[in-house]
Amino acid sequence: MKLSKLVGERLKEVPNGALLKSHIYLIRAGYIKQVSTGIFSMLPPAQKVSQKIQAIIRDEMNKLDGQEVLFPVVMPRELWELSGRYNSIQEELLRFKDRTGHDMLLGMTHEEAAVHMVMNTVKSHEQLPCMIYQIQTKYRDEARPRGGLIRVKEFLMKDAYSFHTTQEDLDFYYKKVYDAYNRIYKRIGLKNFISVRSDSGIMGGKVADEFMLVTDSGEDRLVLCDKCGYKANMEVAEGVKDENDPAEVPEIEEVFTGNAKTIEEVCHFLEIDTKKTAKAVCYVTEDDKLVVAFLRGDYDVNEKKLAKLVKSEIKVADTDKFGLTSGNIGCINLEVPGDAVVLYDTSLEGLEGFVTGANKEDYHLKNVSASRDLEGVTFNDFALVKEGDRCPVCGEKLRLTRGIEIGNIFQLGTKYTKSMGMKVGMPDGTMIEPIMGCYGIGIGRALASVIEEKGDDRGIVWPMTIAPWQVHFCPLRLDDENVNAVSYELYKKMEEAGIEVLFDDRKVSAGVKLTDSELMGMPIRVVISPKTMANGVAEVTMRESHETNFIPLHDLLSELKAIIQDEIDEIEK
Amino acid sequence: MKLSKLVGERLKEVPNGALLKSHIYLIRAGYIKQVSTGIFSMLPPAQKVSQKIQAIIRDEMNKLDGQEVLFPVVMPRELWELSGRYNSIQEELLRFKDRTGHDMLLGMTHEEAAVHMVMNTVKSHEQLPCMIYQIQTKYRDEARPRGGLIRVKEFLMKDAYSFHTTQEDLDFYYKKVYDAYNRIYKRIGLKNFISVRSDSGIMGGKVADEFMLVTDSGEDRLVLCDKCGYKANMEVAEGVKDENDPAEVPEIEEVFTGNAKTIEEVCHFLEIDTKKTAKAVCYVTEDDKLVVAFLRGDYDVNEKKLAKLVKSEIKVADTDKFGLTSGNIGCINLEVPGDAVVLYDTSLEGLEGFVTGANKEDYHLKNVSASRDLEGVTFNDFALVKEGDRCPVCGEKLRLTRGIEIGNIFQLGTKYTKSMGMKVGMPDGTMIEPIMGCYGIGIGRALASVIEEKGDDRGIVWPMTIAPWQVHFCPLRLDDENVNAVSYELYKKMEEAGIEVLFDDRKVSAGVKLTDSELMGMPIRVVISPKTMANGVAEVTMRESHETNFIPLHDLLSELKAIIQDEIDEIEK
Repeated sequence: MKLSKLVGERLKEVPNGALLKSHIYLIRAGYIKQVSTGIFSMLPPAQKVSQKIQAIIRDEMNKLDGQEVLFPVVMPRELWELSGRYNSIQEELLRFKDRTGHDMLLGMTHEEAAVHMVMNTVKSHEQLPCMIYQIQTKYRDEARPRGGLIRVKEFLMKDAYSFHTTQEDLDFYYKKVYDAYNRIYKRIGLKNFISVRSDSGIMGGKVADEFMLVTDSGEDRLVLCDKCGYKANMEVAEGVKDENDPAEVPEIEEVFTGNAKTIEEVCHFLEIDTKKTAKAVCYVTEDDKLVVAFLRGDYDVNEKKLAKLVKSEIKVADTDKFGLTSGNIGCINLEVPGDAVVLYDTSLEGLEGFVTGANKEDYHLKNVSASRDLEGVTFNDFALVKEGDRCPVCGEKLRLTRGIEIGNIFQLGTKYTKSMGMKVGMPDGTMIEPIMGCYGIGIGRALASVIEEKGDDRGIVWPMTIAPWQVHFCPLRLDDENVNAVSYELYKKMEEAGIEVLFDDRKVSAGVKLTDSELMGMPIRVVISPKTMANGVAEVTMRESHETNFIPLHDLLSELKAIIQDEIDEIEK
Repeated sequence: MKLSKLVGERLKEVPNGALLKSHIYLIRAGYIKQVSTGIFSMLPPAQKVSQKIQAIIRDEMNKLDGQEVLFPVVMPRELWELSGRYNSIQEELLRFKDRTGHDMLLGMTHEEAAVHMVMNTVKSHEQLPCMIYQIQTKYRDEARPRGGLIRVKEFLMKDAYSFHTTQEDLDFYYKKVYDAYNRIYKRIGLKNFISVRSDSGIMGGKVADEFMLVTDSGEDRLVLCDKCGYKANMEVAEGVKDENDPAEVPEIEEVFTGNAKTIEEVCHFLEIDTKKTAKAVCYVTEDDKLVVAFLRGDYDVNEKKLAKLVKSEIKVADTDKFGLTSGNIGCINLEVPGDAVVLYDTSLEGLEGFVTGANKEDYHLKNVSASRDLEGVTFNDFALVKEGDRCPVCGEKLRLTRGIEIGNIFQLGTKYTKSMGMKVGMPDGTMIEPIMGCYGIGIGRALASVIEEKGDDRGIVWPMTIAPWQVHFCPLRLDDENVNAVSYELYKKMEEAGIEVLFDDRKVSAGVKLTDSELMGMPIRVVISPKTMANGVAEVTMRESHETNFIPLHDLLSELKAIIQDEIDEIEK
């Protein structure tokens, strides 16, 4: 490919509002162009990377006996009503009416379509296990698209669905997919990725693992144990909280705290540690019941865990509506409606001599004792793990970090097969609903994640396995007749030798050429100039290591092919 | 692939409402499954065919220096307002609001997105010509989906857009794409296809060619000249009408025709030939002006041509609203509103002694003479070509037939670059709006068209170039230990030899296996049984010719590979 003809331009400026490395470089290097919020066009180099990633994913899916299919982007309401998700998913599911007034939707995932396909076409246990997958455009009406291809509305995704007769068979297959996912990330050139147990969310299953690129720029919070390898998404992570010290506690005393409302203000006013307080956070359930959650002042509520405890989605409550004195709510003599749920986090267990709200404007109580004053209370774990908590497996201090979700796999159970009525015949003549697994990878996010991990301060650094071109060929001084002739000949020879080469045939300065090549990120750069030609060599520089070698021109093709193969072998080994 | 594990089932029954061969077989052979009206899932074999067709198309596009990109399915209103199409396209353009209330749409074509991509990224004449293409899901809110994959709402399409500085350059490139399209259809195995000049419709350009599979099952009407090769879509076809005979005509006479209203009723009542009548067809323009179109009774109005003449979309008028006596409208003493347009087709030129409405309930006029009574009238051609009309080029009798549109290419002019403000710099420093071409092929329709052309009364007949598998391997009597062992070994060897094989490993009757293999349509069927094995041979049958050969087992792999290569060479030659 001649760079002069390549659709796309290279920009010097950081695009407005772009914060993530991948977002900045994808725009600046001419890979993507925004069409609308969270909606992008893929320019030729991005499309090439995308297709290489797709090829790796297809290869791994086919190795698992996956059968590639294609489900529609647009689906009818009826299909999603079978599973109950037409109503249960909120606004991310884009619904619309077609010209006949029929309710339709844009697929954000395809469990229903997958079950629809195998229903009646897979009838016997002999056909199981089977896995179908597609690579298809999806649309999620994302409230807060961000970061270029990291969080978008429209995206290309590989989604796979497997069907099994027994949980053991699903477990076995799930593990194989898990391993395939690890290989996929490795093959696209990622190193710093992990998998964590996660919440299955709207998928509705039980076991779920997320694959995460560990990076400070991630939105997801991760909890890791460097000793035993425990890893979890913050949403489901458990931590061992430090124990509260036993103490003799005098009688409860009401103290004036005035305008001090937040836990920080109260602690500052009373000159105490947040660890010596019990704060209240109030929610309402879907059916408008009040939930008062007490936990030690240095912890925050893990809303996912709390929602599971109360078996309902929750949102922050308007406490005034329930007659509570916001900022002074406490666990002693709290008056709440009869159907309210009051919960205590395990961080309060054994806490002695702490401060809590007096349930009275301007006052708090001090000298509260968990053992004395919270008698008979059940403590549950619904706090977010925090720095300093210890590993639930080995007791080592946990490390908190951030990540970008680059894929997820779920055990779905029979949620979809049961609700949609899919059954297969068993050897004994009975009919059962198959157990499902589902497995997703966003192609665009995977692409951006590679840039997040490998990009440096000059631009993108593509691994050899997914680079749009393997070689960026930058002849300097194309106005020099000799350089010109040799360049076009070399370009032709490289292409004939099967080397994927981007040929900078522009008559621009050496500075522009070299800067552009670093921005665009091909793994190998080949420079020739009157000077190198005088020595009969080409300057070959590796984008990642910046290592440069001068290679005799007559060895160039074979050397390039060797380097390319070595790099691929190194990644795929 | 083992057939026992393949997702999909083979059906005996013709699916409800399916009329087209391709629709029937795609359902019966387990290739597609309907999800909603005009919306289908592609099962594994269809996905394989689709991908092979895509690969051929990519190859041809890349040979034209096409750069593959990906535009979004969902686009914002603003983008389509730039071209004016947000409002000009009717209900086929699916519009919806996203969660923020923003007006969005589902792409049914991507001219706007293409210009958006090259705007500012292609700035100089040096970068032109350039062509970008994508293979992407499209959605057209089709009023009457029909025929399985022939006319659907959601479909996969290759669409390409080229940009040029001069008309000559576009003409040159357009011809190259035209040739590439011919190669594509040939390579996917079609024979009976032609290209015809067509109307550019909502695309808004001037020159347009449609590629048509000639078949009685087609929706499009085609006009062909077998002598000189003139070909056109009925919508734009011109025909030389037979000349009207000169004659002396007595005075106009009013005759009672009572309830005879249609031209057939009037002719029957008066016992005259429809060729001796002038009928009126009334339309209204977009701004509600009346259009009265007179033409000889044996012709019908070509509404596309008429719309072009009046420079407006037209629809059939409610004649009562304009005070016309429906069924008795005639070209003599017609009273119409001042802004009405009255048009006469060339079929009326020189017509002597004809009947037309008297513009009076229950009466018609006879003895009307074009030369005497339609003095000063301009005759235009807006009649549909009919059987018996002659070729506008060579005068030979035209042949009317039907076709399925399998692709189209358009010269768009500067409609989009001008309206969207895309300019490139020319050598003399001026800025010009590039001239565009666009080029589309629907993948699913191409797939179905191959079945329409080649399918026989037993099922699908795939050409070797796009068959999901090259060989359908049907061992009979797998309960026989010897057959069983040899079958699994042969299957393994075929796969190792790179032969794409569908292995019918089911323990079902020979009848079911052979019927299924003919229904599914792989080009080569290999049968082994205790009988063939006793002779040390396999029975190899070609799906298309039904020719059978017995090939020694030890030669089977090499023979199969030779047959496969020959078939591919034959198609691609």
